Amino acid sequence: MPPIDESASEFAVLSFLRSRLPAGEGGEVFVGDDAAVLEPPPGRLLLATDMLVEGIHFDLGLTTLEDAGWKAIAANVSDMAAMGGEPLHAVVALAAPEGGGSLEALLNGLEQAAEHFGVRLVGGDLSSAPSWFVAVAITGTCGDRPAVLRSGAREGDRIFVTGPLGASAAGLRQLRSGGAHDKAIEHLLVAYKRPEARIAEGIAAARAGATAMIDVSDGLTRDLGHVAEESGVGFQLFEVPVATGASEEEALGGGEDYELVFTVRGDHVLRHFEEEGLRKPIEIGRCTGDPGERTLRQEPLSVSGWEHSFASRRGGAPPVG
Amino acid sequence: MPPIDESASEFAVLSFLRSRLPAGEGGEVFVGDDAAVLEPPPGRLLLATDMLVEGIHFDLGLTTLEDAGWKAIAANVSDMAAMGGEPLHAVVALAAPEGGGSLEALLNGLEQAAEHFGVRLVGGDLSSAPSWFVAVAITGTCGDRPAVLRSGAREGDRIFVTGPLGASAAGLRQLRSGGAHDKAIEHLLVAYKRPEARIAEGIAAARAGATAMIDVSDGLTRDLGHVAEESGVGFQLFEVPVATGASEEEALGGGEDYELVFTVRGDHVLRHFEEEGLRKPIEIGRCTGDPGERTLRQEPLSVSGWEHSFASRRGGAPPVG
Repeated sequence: MPPIDESASEFAVLSFLRSRLPAGEGGEVFVGDDAAVLEPPPGRLLLATDMLVEGIHFDLGLTTLEDAGWKAIAANVSDMAAMGGEPLHAVVALAAPEGGGSLEALLNGLEQAAEHFGVRLVGGDLSSAPSWFVAVAITGTCGDRPAVLRSGAREGDRIFVTGPLGASAAGLRQLRSGGAHDKAIEHLLVAYKRPEARIAEGIAAARAGATAMIDVSDGLTRDLGHVAEESGVGFQLFEVPVATGASEEEALGGGEDYELVFTVRGDHVLRHFEEEGLRKPIEIGRCTGDPGERTLRQEPLSVSGWEHSFASRRGGAPPVG
Repeated sequence: MPPIDESASEFAVLSFLRSRLPAGEGGEVFVGDDAAVLEPPPGRLLLATDMLVEGIHFDLGLTTLEDAGWKAIAANVSDMAAMGGEPLHAVVALAAPEGGGSLEALLNGLEQAAEHFGVRLVGGDLSSAPSWFVAVAITGTCGDRPAVLRSGAREGDRIFVTGPLGASAAGLRQLRSGGAHDKAIEHLLVAYKRPEARIAEGIAAARAGATAMIDVSDGLTRDLGHVAEESGVGFQLFEVPVATGASEEEALGGGEDYELVFTVRGDHVLRHFEEEGLRKPIEIGRCTGDPGERTLRQEPLSVSGWEHSFASRRGGAPPVG
């Protein structure tokens, strides 16, 4: 097997993938045809796509292609988790620059994350390009539960988050400042480079009757804002759980934490998480009837999440090149 | 509604998409959540992805962003057709350079093709990037028929193609030479800019018992070579149908025609196409028992299709920038 780098032909890469990926089971067909042939889930099918672009979402001066591969899968899995679902299959469109680094490292990261999150990589497309692009599309299912949408929150619903926030943004800050050699901030670097996706937590929230849910990919203020907009409610936050080593600003505005924020009625929420042996979600606020209301400790919140604008860079990475 | 260009925020683009795309039907959810929630098909689920990269697959000096949007959908629909399936839903990961052109033009092309081919655009992701990048992922179904794979061809099977080849490559040649103003070559430009995908033909071939099938995306020699490799057969071609205005070299090696090549046994093939009112497929050769055999009129064929190598540009576009 020749090394897989940016000079490899598509055929060599496909051969490499086929030697490492499952060939399909029970009549299913994965890599090697015009399309994968899959057993559809019994319930509704979830479908989403999320991409990483070099210089926008990651900077190879700060992180590796292996980490970028991991993150591309994690971000997509998190979209399934945010619906109360679990991931099934993924396809990857991958564009690599000539001399831009190791395609094998990126594939390793994709594969490690796919195994970690229980996703099957079943196909892809490959091209050269001026810079790295990794677009993953993912399928999933909620089984016999309805999907949890952004639009179901109502006045009076309690707001929970599955964990402390800001670690990813703080990890990026440490990387940028060159102060990333301190053991005490290792957890921040891991949060930035190898984020988790909260599949079990999303299912527990759905079982507990979550009325709306979203993952914290753009920052709590912004993502909870999406729920508020879709549901026609406002929100009052009592507190924001800040990851050790992160600032409250990073917890509110830093993206890519991939914790889940959900709204729910009633008092049985914690029990559902305890029964599954999961960390208790943290109650952070209430939904209100005023769609314009967005407060923290009774002070108005400014939208400080990552702006997905074409005029600005996003996702934490500084301009590159 | 503000104009949608590369300075638009992701929220503005999502609002634009939601104003133009279906909101979902019968409990389905399309744009606006972390994932689309879809009714799965009754049979097997097909899943594929195909991308276009500016400077590799298209050159904005020769073609428009609207055409690129069309082609991104057509290439994916063609993957469904090549399995004997029909398309269902698609998601789009779209990266656009600042000041690089009109995002709305690209969205128009995606939307026109989606309507033309009967695909529902149900979600996407958007980023800035150094250059244009369009990755589409698509789902489809074969209904109650098994999918037609590349691996089922056997010695003695007849080889058919659904139409003449080379028009797309000839259209690109005309565009490059600046001779694209002649009415007589309009069909070549259309073949390059607005390719069809042969959904009905793929279904007819599947119903006729096609043993293997592939779409001509990389050139007949190369694509039929994939079938031969997967099936463990060789092939003898009697003739190659050349599109008016194209050369035999373009018919053999030019990609992106998106006609279907299939192998089949027996004499009932043409009847299945006639019954559906489809153009008769053209018989071009036979599968043989020697996996090394690849001949045209008894002369060895060289692999002249587009080389998907990172060392060379592909898809017809010359190096850009």
